[in-house]
Order: sequence, then C-alpha cells, then structure tokens
Amino acid sequence: MRFEKAVPLTEIARLIGARIVGNSGGAATGINEIHKVGEGDLVFVDHPKYYQKCINSAATYIIINQETTFPPHKSLLLVDEPFEAYQTIVSHYRPFTPLQKNISDTATIGEGSIVMPGAVIGHHVQIGKGARIFPNAVIMDHCVIGDNVIIQSGTVIGSDAFYYNKKTNRDIHYKKMLSGGRVVIENDVEIGANCTIDRGVSGDTVIGAGTKMDNLVHIGHDTVVGKNCLFAAQVGVAGATTIEDEVILWGQVGVSKTLTIGKGAEVYAQSGVPASLAGGKKYFGSPAEDALVKKKELVWMKRLPVLWEKVFGNK
Amino acid sequence: MRFEKAVPLTEIARLIGARIVGNSGGAATGINEIHKVGEGDLVFVDHPKYYQKCINSAATYIIINQETTFPPHKSLLLVDEPFEAYQTIVSHYRPFTPLQKNISDTATIGEGSIVMPGAVIGHHVQIGKGARIFPNAVIMDHCVIGDNVIIQSGTVIGSDAFYYNKKTNRDIHYKKMLSGGRVVIENDVEIGANCTIDRGVSGDTVIGAGTKMDNLVHIGHDTVVGKNCLFAAQVGVAGATTIEDEVILWGQVGVSKTLTIGKGAEVYAQSGVPASLAGGKKYFGSPAEDALVKKKELVWMKRLPVLWEKVFGNK
Amino acid sequence: MRFEKAVPLTEIARLIGARIVGNSGGAATGINEIHKVGEGDLVFVDHPKYYQKCINSAATYIIINQETTFPPHKSLLLVDEPFEAYQTIVSHYRPFTPLQKNISDTATIGEGSIVMPGAVIGHHVQIGKGARIFPNAVIMDHCVIGDNVIIQSGTVIGSDAFYYNKKTNRDIHYKKMLSGGRVVIENDVEIGANCTIDRGVSGDTVIGAGTKMDNLVHIGHDTVVGKNCLFAAQVGVAGATTIEDEVILWGQVGVSKTLTIGKGAEVYAQSGVPASLAGGKKYFGSPAEDALVKKKELVWMKRLPVLWEKVFGNK
Repeated sequence: MRFEKAVPLTEIARLIGARIVGNSGGAATGINEIHKVGEGDLVFVDHPKYYQKCINSAATYIIINQETTFPPHKSLLLVDEPFEAYQTIVSHYRPFTPLQKNISDTATIGEGSIVMPGAVIGHHVQIGKGARIFPNAVIMDHCVIGDNVIIQSGTVIGSDAFYYNKKTNRDIHYKKMLSGGRVVIENDVEIGANCTIDRGVSGDTVIGAGTKMDNLVHIGHDTVVGKNCLFAAQVGVAGATTIEDEVILWGQVGVSKTLTIGKGAEVYAQSGVPASLAGGKKYFGSPAEDALVKKKELVWMKRLPVLWEKVFGNK
Repeated sequence: MRFEKAVPLTEIARLIGARIVGNSGGAATGINEIHKVGEGDLVFVDHPKYYQKCINSAATYIIINQETTFPPHKSLLLVDEPFEAYQTIVSHYRPFTPLQKNISDTATIGEGSIVMPGAVIGHHVQIGKGARIFPNAVIMDHCVIGDNVIIQSGTVIGSDAFYYNKKTNRDIHYKKMLSGGRVVIENDVEIGANCTIDRGVSGDTVIGAGTKMDNLVHIGHDTVVGKNCLFAAQVGVAGATTIEDEVILWGQVGVSKTLTIGKGAEVYAQSGVPASLAGGKKYFGSPAEDALVKKKELVWMKRLPVLWEKVFGNK
Repeated sequence: MRFEKAVPLTEIARLIGARIVGNSGGAATGINEIHKVGEGDLVFVDHPKYYQKCINSAATYIIINQETTFPPHKSLLLVDEPFEAYQTIVSHYRPFTPLQKNISDTATIGEGSIVMPGAVIGHHVQIGKGARIFPNAVIMDHCVIGDNVIIQSGTVIGSDAFYYNKKTNRDIHYKKMLSGGRVVIENDVEIGANCTIDRGVSGDTVIGAGTKMDNLVHIGHDTVVGKNCLFAAQVGVAGATTIEDEVILWGQVGVSKTLTIGKGAEVYAQSGVPASLAGGKKYFGSPAEDALVKKKELVWMKRLPVLWEKVFGNK
C-alpha cells in the first residue's frame, strides 16, 4: 500500500505504539510484504526465521517484535504484534468506507467510457478513456482501469484478498488480514463475465496491457499478469504469482501461489501448475509437465497390460 | 423445512388429498428428506425399496403411495404421488413471493451491519450484527446470516437446489423439486466474490462458524460445512455432503454428494473426492487418495520405460 | 447474424468498400462463420487455405481478399481485409447501444414472467411466458428466453464471445472480433446462479428445451446444447461445440471447442473432453475415455510395484 504522501516515522510509531530503534527522522512511502517492498517502505515480521530476510530487503523501516542488528540507514519499529501493527496502519490510512451509491463521487471516469446499469464503481476508482463496464460489474475502492478496457457483466474487481493469519491457540482459526492494495488493469485488457480479481494485500494485483480473459476466471491477490496473455474460461490463479507476457492458459487451468510462468508458455486445459514453468514451452497435466513428456506417459499407461502379460504370462 | 408453527395432520391431509392411516390427532413440525428428519416431521416416499427406511426413520408422519405396516405412534398419509404432495406442501407453506425491491420489508438487519449498493436481501432474511454485505451480493428468502459475516460482491446465498425428479415416460426429462430449505451462515464466516450457496431442498445448508471461502466457490443444497474450514477458489461441493471442522480444500477441488470429509482433512488442489475421507490426513488426485500414496504413483509412472526396456530389451 | 430484412449486395459492398465480382443484384440474409452459413448468407475468408471451403459452403456471398473461381450463382466481394469487413458489417447492422436503465424499452416480457430487482434486460430481448429472472441476473441485447425458463441470481446471458484475431506483426496481440450473434434459451430450461452463456459470434448459442444447469456453468459462443441435458456445477463448455439431447455432464467437467458429444452420453466429474464422444456411453478422465477402460487403468497403476518386483527382484 502506497501512502498518499510520505508519513513521518514518528507518526507511524505513535499510531502503532512502537519504540523506534535507529534514526527516527525519516518518512515512510508505503507498507508492503517482503516480496513487494521498495526503498522508503515499511515491512513487518514476527518470526525470527524471517528477521534477516526482512532487514536485508529493500524496505527501510522494519516493524519487528525483537531488537536485532540492522544496517545504519534503516530503522526498527519495535512492537509486540507486527501483524496487528500492519492491520492498524491499513485501517488508519485506508479506512473502510461503505459505498452509499452505485458510483462514488470520488471515482473518475474518462472520456468516452460507459458504465452500464447496476455496475458499482467504488471510492477513488480511476477509469481511463473508452472503457466499457457492463451491467452489474463491481469495481471496488482505489482500483485503476486503463483505456479501452472492457469488463463484462457481473465481474468483480478488487474483492478482498483471501489471506488469513492462522491462529492455533486452543482451536485452529483464521484472522483476516486487511487488503491495503489495489487492482491495476492496464490498457486494452478485456475481462469476461463473472470473473473475480482480488486486490493486493499490501501491493497491487496487475493485469498487463492487451491481456484477454474469458468468463469465471479467478486471479488472486498481488498476482502480476503480463501483457497480451490469453486465459480461457474458469482458469484460477492463486496469490502473489507472476505470469509473464504472452502466456496462454486454457480452460480450467489452476496455478498455485508465488510461482512464475515464463514468457510465451502455453498450458493445456485442466492442467494444474504447482511450481514455476519455463517460458516458450507447452505443458499438460496435474501436476503440469512438458506436454510431450506427459503425452508419452499416457501412451505408456496403455502398454501396462502387455507388459504384465509378458512378465506373468497372463492378465 | 420447518413450519412456523406445528400444523395439524388433518390440515396437511386436506391440502394434499391424503387419507390418514393411524392416529390423525397429531401436528407436524416440518417436512424433510429421509436423511434430515426429526421427531414430529413429515417424510415422503414413493418407492417400495425405501418404504421401511422411511417408516423407521425419526419422522413421525409418512407420506406414502401404498398402505404398509408401521409403528403405533406414527401415521401414514396415503396419496398417489408423494413427491407431488411434497411440492404442494412447500408451495403452500413457503409460497414463492417475488421480491419487489432490493431489501424486503420482512428482512431484519442487525446493529452495525452494512449492506452495500445493488445487494439484494430477500423476504424473512435475518442478518446479525457487524456483517458486511458487499455490492450486488444476493441473499434470498429465509436465509440466516450470523454476526460479523463478510460476503464479497456478486455472491449468491440461497439459490434454488439443483434437484430434479427424473421422468422417463416417453423421453427423459426433469421435474424441478422445490427448495423449502434455507442457508444458515454462522458467525465470523467470510465468503469471497461470485460464490454460490444453494438452499436446502427440505433442510438447511449450513456454513459453520469461522469458515473462510475464497471466490467462485459452489456449495450444494443441504450440505453442512463445519467450523474454521478453509476453501480456496473455485472449489465445488455437491449436495447433502458433510464437511467436518477445520477441513482445508485447496483450489478447484471437487467433492461429490452425500459423503463425509473428516475433521482436519486437507485436500490438495484440483483433487476430486468421490467418496468419504477420514479426518486428519492429506489427500491428492482425482479420484483423491492418500497424498503420499498418490505421489509414489506419480514416481512409479516415470519408471515404466525402464521396466519395458528390461522386459522387452528395447522401447 | 441474421439481418432484420435482406440487405442488397450493393449496399453491403458500399459499406465495406468492396468490388463485386459476379452477379451484384442479390440481397444477403445474414453473415456467419463457415460452419454456420446458409443460403443467402455472407461468409468471410482471408487465407488461401480456406478459400475453396468458403466458396463451396452454403453461403451465397463470399467476402474475400483475392479473386478466384466460383460457382455462377454466387458472388465475391473483394476487399483487402475480410475480417475488418465482418467487423464493419456487425457494427453497422447491430450497433453497440449502451443500456441506460435496467430494462430496455425494446425488451418484451411475456405474461406471468417475473423480473426481480437488479436484473438487467437488454435491448430487443424477448422473454416468453411464466419465466422467472432472479435478482442481478443479466440478459444482454437480442437474446431470446423461452416460456417457463428459470434463471437464478447473478447469471449472465449474452456476454461477448471470447473470440480474437491473433496478430503477430511485431508482438503477439489479440484483436476482438465483434459478437453479432445471440443466445437462444428454449422453453423449460433452468439455469443456476452465477453462470455465463456467451452470445454467438455470428450465429446463435442455443440451450435446448428442458435442459437444467447448476451454478457457475460456462457455455461458450455458438455452442448448441440439446434438449433435456443435465450439467452439474462448474462445468465449462468451449465455443462452437454441439452437445446432443439428454447428455449429462457432472461437476467441473471441461469440454473443448468445435466437437460433438452424442445423445445420452454421460461424463463423470472433473473429466476433460478434448475430442468428440459417441452417444449412449459413460466417460471419465482427462482426457476422457470410456469409463470402464479408465477405471481398469487406475487398477493397472496399482499393480506397477508388483510388476517391478517380479522383474527387478526388489523395489
């Protein structure tokens, strides 16, 4: 999440009840997860296993639950519960404000863009020129829609991330992490009917220019889809994944979280992608493999009875 | 379906044109399918194969198309077409009343709950405290939503069951069975965008407290989901299934009807569950098996060419 | 796409800047793709590989980018870019007209039909008698809904086809092909919640009488579904496919494009159908095969360790 303008570190510390260790004179530009942070950002960590990774990330300010060594140009913000501090910051700088009508007064809609009946355009949404938002589509707060984007009926842009902090004291239960991020849809993207694209938890979910998606597609939080990709109907992509340019995912493909699919890769229908795939190749199966290897495997399967008969003399 | 107050058996008999065999002085508390009935309920049966099961169920009153023996504290309601009698009873006591506006006057919405633009709240819906209903979500008649429940945009709660009586006289065709049941969503449940949760045919579809669902999830009629479950995007669960507490279903998992998944089971992405699964274990594949067994199977597949070469001397 | 009345060939030629070769006195009844054309129709082709197929199709008028031989009763319309000519014709005779309110004044709604709050009924939509359109469903322009049809909440009928012309000059990118076709839903069809049925590109997408679909089902452009079919939740069918009468597709089945599934076939849950299937049989797997063959294959898999041990003496 970017702040609208840089926030003094002392203001952040007061808000979350933190003790600053190191230079307290700076100002934070935003707050993000470890894999999305940049210089000037806050990051948060509560487990010793990830301390060094956070302290050595691009982030300048580390919200942490234990004092530890850190580079001289950075600062620590010591709190008991870093995840709670994150929630407090998001709630404060991006407060939940219920919509009162179909199109918020703070939304901006570019020249020649059309919003059809029943569509909902949230607070601070920006829509470019020549876009078409079909009936009953929903674009929630802070999302950005480029020029000539087409969003078919019933699609939801900017639903909350499916992102929970698992608590195991007594029973297992799940605490919702607030979604401070946005969805950014670049120019010339077309999205089918009844799709869902979740906002980033702390960064942005991005759909690259020229990409086309069919109906009932799901894109998770903080996922970045490249330019001129093609996703067929009922594809699902989990959170924080990177899909490079010109990737084709055929119908009902599922893609797991935090992986990368390389440029120009093509994944055949119903495949499941549990790990990163190199670009420029074709894949099939669940788990997905090189399509040629997988097709041979299907042929091998058919030879099993022959093999059995040779070895055992009968079936 | 529960009646609002107990209905005298003679009133039911008059409505459906039944002849009462046995004690006619009682009153019925509701009507349900065989696997959901309780004492005081009506049940209905038209096939000799199921006569004894229905007569010996917890139900007190049996709508049936043939006279047969039954326990002394029960009664039969004799009709030619028991399924038609069910339809008549549901139509009469829970008549279809088209909504005239977005929020029915008979709905109750608790303190601090927010209903955003375009959302539709049906007749007799009850929403607890502190709930958030996002834009264009639909909650149909008689459904119950607990405290602090979050329902993202476009989700439909209480759509009719996908439940038909197959007729094979001349052609095959399907007759819709009315959905007299409800959806009951307990406290602290969160449901993603563009999900669908069907109402029960004669009982309730239940989502247990603390359960979280991602986008585009489908839950069939009369299915009961336990507490603190986690369902990732595009999961589908068929009708009348039981999912116990703390079950995790990853993306695009499909679960068949009338089975049970035990407490704490975890089913990996894209798996298909055709039969009941014991709790506390991890599963993978379509059909789903113990994940370790299934993973070994994938390794065995890779050894097939080696085996072939050993046996036949070449590939 | 049917024209409302036959259009003189000279008017078409003027509109798209074509030179007529052959008889210029005729009138065109519609424009369609090669596999959907009839006598009196326009067809369009830009690749020599398909020239003869188009010229010998049922179409009478061929929009083409090179002069070639043709039967005496037909005519050519010579243009540089036949696909652009198609777009120009669709834009002209079926112009995009944004909806201004939930129910267009040009829609007709039959006696006893109910349209609930938030539903959107587009221009020139025709709804028969006794239909029920649930809240927030969307029926876009020119679609036809039969008698007694039920459409549950959030379903979108007549979204644009997922159909693009791939351009590979410099980068890969995709140009949207306009959808001039309709969705035609015959009598007694019932469609679940949050489904999507795309309109035809140049022909019609058809759902046959008596067919029932569960929630979150996707049907692609120009697909024709027969009578009394049953599709369970999350089924996806790609474009221009033919599904004959009484076919059953269980949950999460995926069906590829331009194939045929024969009458009465049944496809088990999560199967993937990449090629045509004969009627009257049961299928399973991805890719789908005869269910009995596939089940045997699963048994053979389990025998692999035994085979290995016999051949190699150990595992």
